Amino acid sequence: MNKKKLVVIGGDAAGMSGASQVKRLKPEWEVVVLEKTDFISYAACGMPYYLEGLVPEKEQLIELTPEDAVSKRKIDLRLRHEVTKIFPEDNKVAIKTEQGEYEESFDFLLIATGSLPLIPRAGYQQSEQVFVLKNLSDMEKIDTFIKENSPGKCAVIGGGYIGLEMAEAFRGRGLETHLIHRRTDLSKTFEVEISNLIKEEMANNGVVLNLETTIEAITDEGEGVTVITDKGKLNYDFVFLGLGTVPASKLAGECGIELGIKGSIKVNEYLQTNYPNIYAAGDCAETMHLLSKEPVYTPLALKANKEGLLAGMNMAGLQKPFRGVLGTAITKCFSLGVARTGLTYGEAVKHNFNPVKIPLNSQSRAKYYPDSAKLFSLIIADKGTGLILGAQLAGPLDAVKRIDVYVTAIQHKMTLDDIFDLDLAYAPPFSPVYDPVLLAARVGRKFI
Amino acid sequence: MNKKKLVVIGGDAAGMSGASQVKRLKPEWEVVVLEKTDFISYAACGMPYYLEGLVPEKEQLIELTPEDAVSKRKIDLRLRHEVTKIFPEDNKVAIKTEQGEYEESFDFLLIATGSLPLIPRAGYQQSEQVFVLKNLSDMEKIDTFIKENSPGKCAVIGGGYIGLEMAEAFRGRGLETHLIHRRTDLSKTFEVEISNLIKEEMANNGVVLNLETTIEAITDEGEGVTVITDKGKLNYDFVFLGLGTVPASKLAGECGIELGIKGSIKVNEYLQTNYPNIYAAGDCAETMHLLSKEPVYTPLALKANKEGLLAGMNMAGLQKPFRGVLGTAITKCFSLGVARTGLTYGEAVKHNFNPVKIPLNSQSRAKYYPDSAKLFSLIIADKGTGLILGAQLAGPLDAVKRIDVYVTAIQHKMTLDDIFDLDLAYAPPFSPVYDPVLLAARVGRKFI
Repeated sequence: MNKKKLVVIGGDAAGMSGASQVKRLKPEWEVVVLEKTDFISYAACGMPYYLEGLVPEKEQLIELTPEDAVSKRKIDLRLRHEVTKIFPEDNKVAIKTEQGEYEESFDFLLIATGSLPLIPRAGYQQSEQVFVLKNLSDMEKIDTFIKENSPGKCAVIGGGYIGLEMAEAFRGRGLETHLIHRRTDLSKTFEVEISNLIKEEMANNGVVLNLETTIEAITDEGEGVTVITDKGKLNYDFVFLGLGTVPASKLAGECGIELGIKGSIKVNEYLQTNYPNIYAAGDCAETMHLLSKEPVYTPLALKANKEGLLAGMNMAGLQKPFRGVLGTAITKCFSLGVARTGLTYGEAVKHNFNPVKIPLNSQSRAKYYPDSAKLFSLIIADKGTGLILGAQLAGPLDAVKRIDVYVTAIQHKMTLDDIFDLDLAYAPPFSPVYDPVLLAARVGRKFI
Repeated sequence: MNKKKLVVIGGDAAGMSGASQVKRLKPEWEVVVLEKTDFISYAACGMPYYLEGLVPEKEQLIELTPEDAVSKRKIDLRLRHEVTKIFPEDNKVAIKTEQGEYEESFDFLLIATGSLPLIPRAGYQQSEQVFVLKNLSDMEKIDTFIKENSPGKCAVIGGGYIGLEMAEAFRGRGLETHLIHRRTDLSKTFEVEISNLIKEEMANNGVVLNLETTIEAITDEGEGVTVITDKGKLNYDFVFLGLGTVPASKLAGECGIELGIKGSIKVNEYLQTNYPNIYAAGDCAETMHLLSKEPVYTPLALKANKEGLLAGMNMAGLQKPFRGVLGTAITKCFSLGVARTGLTYGEAVKHNFNPVKIPLNSQSRAKYYPDSAKLFSLIIADKGTGLILGAQLAGPLDAVKRIDVYVTAIQHKMTLDDIFDLDLAYAPPFSPVYDPVLLAARVGRKFI
């Protein structure tokens, strides 16, 4: 009998991708998805834009409804089912529901428990006016709070992607918005030149930047929230914590599943944990950086979706590796698009390359064409070999998706000369004759 | 004595790129550029947009003024100097000017004579109301004609890039515009699915399409222009001929320089003709298709600029090959962006591949994000190997520059699986979680 049973813990991107893929390849298998909340498959990355007011209905953020998961994909989906224990040797899990507890056996287990907002241990008082944004219920809390209390002034703590996106969202809602960040520069994944352009764009759009500001405590004394910093007390109507995420791997770790970097679940390239029939995928799982060849923790949507899909394929008997990530990311900061991939200069040094930084100001379109705007590129290349190690772009929103050319080039070990030889597309509404990617390669040869 | 003398015939993209590059690498060399018109280095691709009214001043189309060529780049630029003969064995050229004729010797010669509008031999009467668009003087003639005569109705003959761009320009000037094309489908470089989307966009923007219409003659009988076709006589206030270009290689061919495909000048990958000290670059020169490995005639701006640059480097003693083209092109048709690269399905069959067509409708952004729109992709891949052979896109203007990812992939022999493994950038304002490029690779695996 070839009929197997897959149990999936977690019904978001990775979990539902894996479950759906297994049902597609092995319709006869039993696939049980255990999700502790009421939500599955929602577009977490869209939540800041809903809060900004750009997405009219929150239902638009639902990628797949529970009803469709059951009726169309034939998945045995169980909402409000929390897995409390994994028994890897016995191939079963313990489950808690409102009705009581029970156990479920499995042939394959997919752990897709995602991530949790990072909340520093000390001094951050739980408060109705201190928010995080991990799921749709968090999003609704923020939305309701703004609607019901008409706050005037808020703080976003943290200068990473979520911090930038939420600062923009709150400005979009008409709030006085402060960004508090402990260093001068924003997220370390950006080179300082890019960080400066982001700070300029935020300031131009009315975000007050409280940089080099360390938070000692957050207290709620009745009237708003007080943020106690090394530079004094600051008072806000509410505070948003955008300090990043940590893998939701406690359950796995406690049950004998090996953890790796930053506490994420260790997996091989087939997404298998230390138990070959137990897989992990998405924000809870570690992966490999394609250039540094070191394990990294990268809680991003594309990785989660791909890993879920590939874990599903592998459980169904195909041999499809997930090769890893390059650390690609893109975001919108008001009218500025920012994108990055590969190693930073500092990371390249750390990994024994001999990097040079190649900065370039170019135009996004032919200079005479309407709305041609400044595009700043920063390429990290290896001196001597000319190998491209990283790239960061800041410019108009329609110009920065060309980061994908660098992604393709870096994953396939191309040099500046290889880039220059590319027959990239040109017409005045889309780029200068020498696309900025070609121009950077041309200019860059002088640095090598 | 290491001081050499370079003579360049033609002062546009390829010629001035070559001349400038040689002066940069070898400032002590004498560099003479002989240009028969009054213009150098103008943005030919920008001319339709000037005529549409999107570029306010024609001076914006000048990339380099004659004054700057002389004073800043130290080039001995001679306008209204027409080369009438090349003596390859004697290393000299004969030149005609308004003042008379003379000869100029050279150590190196760069032929950068460009291209000429294709005008069918028979039945196309010379007329003041029949226009082509090759240089700034042609552009001014059209602009002046429209301003002075307020025409109501015009015809564009030819459904290639220039035809599409000029039809849009004339609509932008408020004219009733007919596009006459001899086949049902537009330019053969587009697959029929893409051609259909372009035709739809043109029709939606008021361009009248006269397809499957063969022109027998064009006559000028006083009142406007009459186009005599196999379907009857059509009358217009003026006619624009957008039938493509032919290499301006007559001079070279007559003087013993070997010609290749479609009469373009035969060159090796270092841009040398059959005489090693005589180079050719740009629209007059043939090149190689990177996939088919066959010679092609590709009169496009990026090729001209790169070839000029590389010819300059090679004359100055570097060994920098121009590897060839992939047939990449991109254009705007009203609100539709269209891009293509690599082989068409038909070309792939001809070159002994076993191609499959992979069509995909996807979204340009996360589906809930404002202005997310339909992007159509058509991938040509090799059955069995999964090698990407070609790609064509049609969709919103800000979505189709991702053709460059395909360019990079095809030039480096990637398969659909390689594409799927790319860590491409995602955020809701820029793409769905699975960028259309990844999604096409994912869907495409079923076809292989």
